[in-house]
Parts: sequence; structure tokens; C-alpha cells
Amino acid sequence: MGSRRRVNVDTLNVELGTRSYPILIDAGLIGRAEVFRQHLPARDVLVLSNTTVAPLYLPALAASLGGRRIVEVILPDGEAHKTLASAARVLDVLVANRFGRDCAVLALGGGVVGDLAGFAAACYQRGVAFAQVPTTLLAQVDSAVGGKTGVNHPGGKNLIGAFHQPVLVVSDTATLATLPERELRAGLAEVIKYGLICDAALFAWLEEHLDELLARDGAALAHVIRRSCEIKAAVVGRDEREQGERALLNLGHTFGHALESATGYEEWLHGEAVGAGLSMAAAMSRECGLLTGAEAGRIVRLLERAGLPTRIASVTPAAALEHMRIDKKVLGGRLRLVLLRGIGTAYLTADYPPAALERTLAAHCG
Amino acid sequence: MGSRRRVNVDTLNVELGTRSYPILIDAGLIGRAEVFRQHLPARDVLVLSNTTVAPLYLPALAASLGGRRIVEVILPDGEAHKTLASAARVLDVLVANRFGRDCAVLALGGGVVGDLAGFAAACYQRGVAFAQVPTTLLAQVDSAVGGKTGVNHPGGKNLIGAFHQPVLVVSDTATLATLPERELRAGLAEVIKYGLICDAALFAWLEEHLDELLARDGAALAHVIRRSCEIKAAVVGRDEREQGERALLNLGHTFGHALESATGYEEWLHGEAVGAGLSMAAAMSRECGLLTGAEAGRIVRLLERAGLPTRIASVTPAAALEHMRIDKKVLGGRLRLVLLRGIGTAYLTADYPPAALERTLAAHCG
Repeated sequence: MGSRRRVNVDTLNVELGTRSYPILIDAGLIGRAEVFRQHLPARDVLVLSNTTVAPLYLPALAASLGGRRIVEVILPDGEAHKTLASAARVLDVLVANRFGRDCAVLALGGGVVGDLAGFAAACYQRGVAFAQVPTTLLAQVDSAVGGKTGVNHPGGKNLIGAFHQPVLVVSDTATLATLPERELRAGLAEVIKYGLICDAALFAWLEEHLDELLARDGAALAHVIRRSCEIKAAVVGRDEREQGERALLNLGHTFGHALESATGYEEWLHGEAVGAGLSMAAAMSRECGLLTGAEAGRIVRLLERAGLPTRIASVTPAAALEHMRIDKKVLGGRLRLVLLRGIGTAYLTADYPPAALERTLAAHCG
Repeated sequence: MGSRRRVNVDTLNVELGTRSYPILIDAGLIGRAEVFRQHLPARDVLVLSNTTVAPLYLPALAASLGGRRIVEVILPDGEAHKTLASAARVLDVLVANRFGRDCAVLALGGGVVGDLAGFAAACYQRGVAFAQVPTTLLAQVDSAVGGKTGVNHPGGKNLIGAFHQPVLVVSDTATLATLPERELRAGLAEVIKYGLICDAALFAWLEEHLDELLARDGAALAHVIRRSCEIKAAVVGRDEREQGERALLNLGHTFGHALESATGYEEWLHGEAVGAGLSMAAAMSRECGLLTGAEAGRIVRLLERAGLPTRIASVTPAAALEHMRIDKKVLGGRLRLVLLRGIGTAYLTADYPPAALERTLAAHCG
């Protein structure tokens, strides 16, 4: 394999003992063979991608993985394909190629591809190595980090899955140049979320620099990717399996997941649903007297400037509530929600007036 | 819930830190509500069983679980139903009943039901609680303990799965009274396996007391269940995820799994395939000069007395080899096998003459 020199790349570590792993962030990483030589020893690699991303980046990635046995699985693009049937297809290909426990599954694409590849890797032979090469802003700031893998069920988002940490995350920021505008905006929803949860300074920075992000300024994008990964890596390092603090990362997601499943995962990108969900979480926090009108207004304005939806016309309040009831944060029959006590301070609670939830849904749905 | 007194039952603990759990062994445990009250707090319980076991024991179990919401899934009996499709059916029922992350999945039956229930519990909402109520000797001595869950793939046994520990194992030895003769003998294969791996005294005890076991003497059965669980709990406590020592518990299983998948999981019970696999592992160890002829003879004689197959007519040597190649112990393309250096001493190795494997398969297959 030749060169054993250290790869010199901006690197963050997710600290999880024997399951720790690096997040590498830089433009052009997909073309750097030494990154994969150093961090991904597997001889047999299944690359999962989709019909949009594969033509753009799979040739360069395959070249960087040179010298190994590569098997490709290319799915249609979209959240509607994040199903148990797609995972079964990946498993069939692993078996058909006689891949052993020492193989790796590599995800090249956005959150759908990453969640699916991770779940297949978790289940194959009770767990094989898994690498993330995220090519969307949303995956680079959020879904590629932290080991939540899974697929959707017609009855609810991500209801089938596993905690399975990757061994490597390679965020090639050059891929964002080809990202559709709509995907870029969807990714910003998760960045805004980090600011709201625990970093008021990041939120204020976004208010100041949003136009640079929308213009795809490289330094601005690198800043929010790094800061988002820092926050997520720290939270995951303290609470890998969501026994507590990690649930805060789901701000806006209980609302958002319900809207996604109510619309059959077809109408919106995940990040768009999170945008509407953040708007609803802010409104609900305002209903509960936790946020000032000025704070709620700043949140909605930033979401609107990012081009994200803040309500949904195609789902009734009753349908939204019905889909929220199967959320993974339901405990003892009681739906827990992440709410805001201010910009930069989120908390998880089941202690809110049901009428506040009803008013929030009535104002944002249908 | 009333009574908070301690349950007074023979109890072993599997020591896995925060994931430690008790194995309770006694006659009549299914009918003792306080066992479940004490160890299984979940309010919502999905009970997975099969058409053979459910009529015998589900009414008593449901009574002991009284006061909770119980949903039942009853599968046809047999290894052929341990599939991803069956797991998907369990997941569908969990979603349809809006079960939350605080639910439990309880397996009432043998290894098929236990492996399947555990895998569904591992995948639902990224992991919910899971309890084992094994009703076969094989499940009580082996498969219900240790957290290996999974389903078969047409290409190989247990290729899809997860490590997911139960929170409770309740071995009601009274269930063995209704166990078909063939199932009893299949369970003995795993008991003989423990003796071969690490307990020459257990092996000698089996030579002495096999007839009592076949006559279902309660004390003899309780002895082998307890001793088998002691050995397995100790090994799993030291090596939960099979990084080393735990692989020894697969003595006879690489051969056995290949015979099962080559016959479509239809011809033999798992324990019968393990019986033939133990005979083949002994023959292979003899081929490699590791066992004396006298030792190999003792092993085959005990298997024969237990009524277990020691060879297979319906699978050719070539087909057996082909199916062995997808075993989870293949590393770097090399098939590793558990062999015996003597009765009571097993070890894992990829260092054996390929011709010894070919001769072993030629002598035992077709």
C-alpha cells in the first residue's frame, strides 16, 4: 500500500473509548487515497450511493479505494427509499459477494444513504465496519456523525434502526459545490438547530453570515460544519445512546418526523421538515411562556431567510398529532418534547399543557 | 403491584456492567407472577411464540403478566421461519400498537423464537427491552443466554443480527416435560459441546448420566442447565462481542450451520446439525493429530447414545464447503475453525491442512 505518512487534515474526534473515530473535514478529501488507506483497512468494501451522487463522486472515490474489492449498490434518490426493503437489498449483496466480518460498508451521499448503510452494516454478521463520506450539508453537519442508523417504517420515521458508530467520517466540503440549492437550505436547518439548543453565539453568527452560507462561501461553510460537528461530537461522547442529553439534538424533530411520515416521506427533504419543526418548537415554547415574542420572531425570521418552511399546508393538526404519538420519545404513553427556554437553551419535558400543543399544531398545520 | 418480596429462585447472573441480567432456573416459573413483576417493569409487552408452544404455556404466562397490555405474535414452528420477513412482521405489530421505547419484547419458545424476538427488540426504536422465557432444552442451556440475536439468510445461518442482551431469562424446567424427544436430544448436543470446549468433568458426567437425562430426570436436567449457563455466562461476561474466547462456543457450529443452510433449514433441528458438526470437529481434530482415536471414539459414542446424527447423507462435501465459506469466522478470506486439543480443550485456528478439512467433509457428507 506504500505511503504511511500521516494525513494532514482538519480532524475532530468523537471520543467513545474503543469506538472513537475521526471526522475529517476539507475540500477534495474524496480524491485523497491516503485518507482511506490510513483509516479504512478493509479489503472488501461495499459502497452504497444513489443515482444522483454516484455519477458525480463515485469514480474518484473508487480510485482512492484502489487495490480493494469494491461492490457498488446504487439506490434511487430520496427519503422514500430509506426502507427495510432497501436494507435487505444491501444485505443480499453482501451475502452474494461472500463478504466476511472484516469487510466495510461505505456510505457516499446524504443522510438517507448514510442511515441505510449504517443500519445494514450494524445487522450484517451482527456488525461490520462502516464509513461515512457525506456529500450534503445536512449529512456533514449532523447525520453522518453519532452512530444513529436506521430506516423508516410507513408508521413512523427511523422506527427501525441501531446505534452503530462509523469508524471514519470523511466530509469533503468540495461536494457542496454541486449540492442543489434546496438541499443546501435543508442542511442549514440542522445548523440553526445547534445554535438554538446550546450555542447562542452560533445563532447570532448565522444571523450575521447567512448570506455568505447561501452564496456557498467556503470559509463560512467550513466554519458551520466544524462547529456543528464539535457540538454533536461532544454530546454523543457524553451520551451515546440517548439516555439523556442527546435527546436535545432532536429539537424540532418530533414535529418534523411527524410531518415527514404524514406525507409519506415524499413532500419534503428531512431538513425542510426540521425547519418547520423548529418553527413549531419555538411557537410551542412561546405558548408555554418560555420564549419572548422577540426571541420567537428571531427564530422564524432566520428560518425564513434560509428559505425553510415554517408551517405545512398538506397535513391537518389531527394527522400531525397522530403521527407524533409514535415518536421514540414517548414514554409511559406521554409524548416528551424538546422545548426552548431561550435561544441557546433547550430541555426535554413531558410537562406542558396539552392545549399548548394543540394550539401550536392548529396554527402551523392544514 | 402489591408484593415486593424477593423472588426465591436459583439465580445466575450474567455480569455485563449496566447490561447485567439474571437467569432464573426452576420448575413452574412461568406461573409465578412475582418473577415478572420484579424483573420486567414494562407496561406494554409483545409476546412472540409459535403455534406449538403458545397453546401450552401462553395462557399461564399471560396470567403472570397480568395488568399489562399484552400483544401476541404467534409464528409457525421451525427454523425456516427465522427470517427477516418474520422480524419485519414483529416490527409491524409493534408500530401498529404504538408501542414506545419503554416496551418489552418477550420470547416464549425455543431458539428460533428467542433469536427472532431479540433481533426485533434490538431494531425497534434502536433497541427496546427483551426477555427470554425458553421452553426447549437447547434454548435453556444455550441460545437464550448471551445476547446473540438474529435471523437466517438464504445464503447462510444467522448472517443478519445484532448483539442485544436480554434483561431477564426465565428457564422454567417444567416445560421440558412436554418437549418432543427429538428436541430434547437436540438440546443435549449443546450440553455435550460445553463439556468438549472446557469441562472434561461435565463430559464424563454426561457419559455416566446420559440415560437419566433422556429419561428427563429433573435433578439431572437441572444440573446440566445450571452448569451450561454457568459456563456460558462466564464466557459472555469476559467476551460479549466475540472478539476472542467466545468464538469457542461455536465448536461444531461452522460445520453445523453449513449443513443447515445447505438443507434450507428444513431437514434438521439446529441441535441436530450441531451434533453432526461436533462429530466432524472431532474427526477433523483427529485428522490434524490433536485428538487420540480413543478420545474421538468417546465423542462419537456419546453423540450416538444421545440419538444425534454424526454425518449427513443429503449434502455433498462440495456443497458443505461452499456453505462454510460464508461463515462469520472467515477472516481475510481464510476459514477459521474451532478444533479440539483434547476433551475439554477447544481452540480457534485458521492453521490446518486444507486436505484435512476435505477428508473430514468427504467422510461425513453425501
